Amino acid sequence: MQPTAYQQLVSVFTRIYRFEHLAAMVGWDQAAMMPPEGNDARGAALAELDVLIHHSLTDPALAATIAAASSEDLNEAEQASLREMKRQWEHANLLPASLVEAKTLAGSKCSHEWRTQRANNDWDGFLANFREVVRLSREEAQLLSQHSGLSPYEALMNKYEPGMTCAELDRIFGDVKQWLPELIQQAMTKQSKEPVIAAQGPFAIESQRALGLEVMKLLGFNFAAGRLDVSHHPFCGGVAEDVRITTRYTEDDFTQSMMGIVHETGHARYEQNLPRDLVHLPVGRARSMAVHESQSLSFEMQLGRSPAFLALIQPLVQQHLGEQAAFSASNLAKIYTRVKPDFIRVDADELTYPAHVILRYEIERALIDGDIEPDEIPALWNQKMLAYLGVDTQGNFKNGCLQDIHWTDGSFGYFPSYTLGAMYAAQFFATIRSQFPDLDQRIAAGDLAPIFDWLKTHIWTPASRWETAELIQRATGESLNPAHFRQHLEQRYLG
Amino acid sequence: MQPTAYQQLVSVFTRIYRFEHLAAMVGWDQAAMMPPEGNDARGAALAELDVLIHHSLTDPALAATIAAASSEDLNEAEQASLREMKRQWEHANLLPASLVEAKTLAGSKCSHEWRTQRANNDWDGFLANFREVVRLSREEAQLLSQHSGLSPYEALMNKYEPGMTCAELDRIFGDVKQWLPELIQQAMTKQSKEPVIAAQGPFAIESQRALGLEVMKLLGFNFAAGRLDVSHHPFCGGVAEDVRITTRYTEDDFTQSMMGIVHETGHARYEQNLPRDLVHLPVGRARSMAVHESQSLSFEMQLGRSPAFLALIQPLVQQHLGEQAAFSASNLAKIYTRVKPDFIRVDADELTYPAHVILRYEIERALIDGDIEPDEIPALWNQKMLAYLGVDTQGNFKNGCLQDIHWTDGSFGYFPSYTLGAMYAAQFFATIRSQFPDLDQRIAAGDLAPIFDWLKTHIWTPASRWETAELIQRATGESLNPAHFRQHLEQRYLG
Ligand SMILES: [Zn+2]
Ligand SMILES: [Zn+2]
Repeated sequence: MQPTAYQQLVSVFTRIYRFEHLAAMVGWDQAAMMPPEGNDARGAALAELDVLIHHSLTDPALAATIAAASSEDLNEAEQASLREMKRQWEHANLLPASLVEAKTLAGSKCSHEWRTQRANNDWDGFLANFREVVRLSREEAQLLSQHSGLSPYEALMNKYEPGMTCAELDRIFGDVKQWLPELIQQAMTKQSKEPVIAAQGPFAIESQRALGLEVMKLLGFNFAAGRLDVSHHPFCGGVAEDVRITTRYTEDDFTQSMMGIVHETGHARYEQNLPRDLVHLPVGRARSMAVHESQSLSFEMQLGRSPAFLALIQPLVQQHLGEQAAFSASNLAKIYTRVKPDFIRVDADELTYPAHVILRYEIERALIDGDIEPDEIPALWNQKMLAYLGVDTQGNFKNGCLQDIHWTDGSFGYFPSYTLGAMYAAQFFATIRSQFPDLDQRIAAGDLAPIFDWLKTHIWTPASRWETAELIQRATGESLNPAHFRQHLEQRYLG
Repeated sequence: MQPTAYQQLVSVFTRIYRFEHLAAMVGWDQAAMMPPEGNDARGAALAELDVLIHHSLTDPALAATIAAASSEDLNEAEQASLREMKRQWEHANLLPASLVEAKTLAGSKCSHEWRTQRANNDWDGFLANFREVVRLSREEAQLLSQHSGLSPYEALMNKYEPGMTCAELDRIFGDVKQWLPELIQQAMTKQSKEPVIAAQGPFAIESQRALGLEVMKLLGFNFAAGRLDVSHHPFCGGVAEDVRITTRYTEDDFTQSMMGIVHETGHARYEQNLPRDLVHLPVGRARSMAVHESQSLSFEMQLGRSPAFLALIQPLVQQHLGEQAAFSASNLAKIYTRVKPDFIRVDADELTYPAHVILRYEIERALIDGDIEPDEIPALWNQKMLAYLGVDTQGNFKNGCLQDIHWTDGSFGYFPSYTLGAMYAAQFFATIRSQFPDLDQRIAAGDLAPIFDWLKTHIWTPASRWETAELIQRATGESLNPAHFRQHLEQRYLG
């Protein structure tokens, strides 16, 4: 019997998943294990693999197979699977190879030189490369926009957040901008009367690692299907069947590596609990970047920095790092909720973080839609930083508009995912709390099952079965609602 | 300008090398890093990669390109390169895909069930699977033999040792059989009067690892292009640009892991010093299995177990593992040269090891050439073990003919490489010693440059430029001569 068109697609995408497995594992190795002289050969091998994956997705025969599958008699699950295959296929086929290649080249040149330019505060040097990245990204956005009917910026953002619109982002971020600056001020005023005891290092790396492993265990990380290692930039990599998370240790501070592990464990549990029987197909994989981030932020922000969780793990901290006044549950909670408007997004606290994201969203959207040019960025950056956070970045490019890697290789449209993830997480926890009014007591007592069960049922198992909006609606009974995020922040920072 | 046929082949083989890079790295990861639930996805990804490499090598267009390159005006280096490409291409194309597949299937079944059968001493159970592996291996040998004009067994052996003949093996192993049994007896008699002090554990794994790393440094391992990790079966993996060696630690004995590291470092330095500008082509890679083993055994047997080297590293042993009477240089030398005929090849000492290899060579050759059938193996095994080593294996299959993995998946013809490697190593050191009569003093003083320089010039840099026989002739001024091996053993064990 001939395989159906849908079955043929399953074979094609399964094969691609095998190649992605290889890319994920050697990518992890490159960041976590590889000695420096291996880099050129690794780069060449990864590039060869990219070509192979791209060829598999741009095989001209696929168009007919997808068309044929669309008129086959598919059940609802298969239809969802086909929809996700088609999305991936379109994404690979919409752009001419010449544009993809030009953008990759311009992006890696700009990205590579940015490392030095940032250190040297060299905005002009950066601008010389960056103009070309912007030009090509606009071209990409234009082509994607023509196909989808979305605005150019929306079309780029939809690579990461399928279904999200600028209208919705404006509604949500507009809401946040109404109340966030004042909330930051109130929180700072409140905290100025509540001194924090700083933890006294050094903290041996081995002890930090042992503590991290225990926290991962508590959070349900499956060590038979994953590992914890070290890399310069912490990330969650590998594949669903074998998730590799990393952290970075410094002897003088354990708080960042510990909470970083909590964050990556959230990403990891999503991956580890995707439906194993579907994980080789697009429909069986993570819904979107924001949904992925909603899992890490459920773990880090909703659970990890809560007083209840910090009370739960406080004995572990003492057991591994010794006894200190700083390790009381209430002081740990203060450490992990300290608010301080500052330059750097990745070091920002929970409360000021959305301001960093909204600023970037507004600038990158204007840039892609052609409302501003690259040389206008620094002034705009400074103006918005002053307005949202009261931080002056004039002339300080390295800690201002040169701080992120995202724009350097043309990854425009990614930033909103961070704050969308934080909002989804708040909305999920509002739902969980409505079902378990005693959630904090349960957490403090070590009963994390209400959280894990809910996430498993409503987020991990569905994977990409539904579009994001439907996933959120089914899980929480309403569409994305920033009121939950506000309520969470007010409760934590003013409550 | 059109690329020449030779240039086209360079592109094809470079691409294959990129894929082999991926296979090597995820293969290392599978043995050294991967958690158990990752195994199925890893197996599937590796199988997909195998198919891809096989397809690349069996592309029908390659035949014409190779033919065209053969009539191009190539310099001597390019001719050697073409010769090695052709060898790899022929190896991949000589066998029908159906046979390759059948042998892979039968081999993995037999190999997989062997793990349990060996533990259960279940020869009959093993035989049921093994007959099919033998049948298919004979078929493979027949086809390779028809093409090459070699005998069936020679044709299989030539996969690992191109150019080696049974006539030469018979000459060499025949020679060894003349003097080895008596030498073993004499050594044992001599050693019975020389008590050894056993080292007293436990030895902390971290200390063993630190010691191993220092020994690797002393041996010139390039840590910018490689790593040391842990796996159940120690090996040297990765790629020339990034060599991954492994060892296995037990707390009650450090001697095996330490000398295992010395052994794998020998393999690693060969890989790390292959010509970087040619390593993407077959001609730039290791000459043969025996030549590879000659490097690990140069490090382990010629250098590593010598009294001079043990005197050199003795302070490191004490520094990392504490002071013990057992750690005197002379006692370490006794530990590392103790002779004891026993069941297991991989645990055998330097002196009895060749007997294990010759026994296997004689049996596997008769089996492939059809002179014996699989069910005759145990009797033959027992008879030869008694004759060569005085060890009775009757009924003891698990420590007899079921001990090795090689036959279970049809890797017939590999065993001779081990002892050929030991002989090449002895011959290399005889040459080095003739140029540096004070070699032992130099070693004891930490001057290992004479050894590394010689190996680099004569073995590492030439890679596969010449056939093995020519490589040995150029390096040592004579063809493979087992007299050097005998002299080395007599000097070490009776001297
Ligand atoms: Zn994250
Ligand atoms: Zn070896």
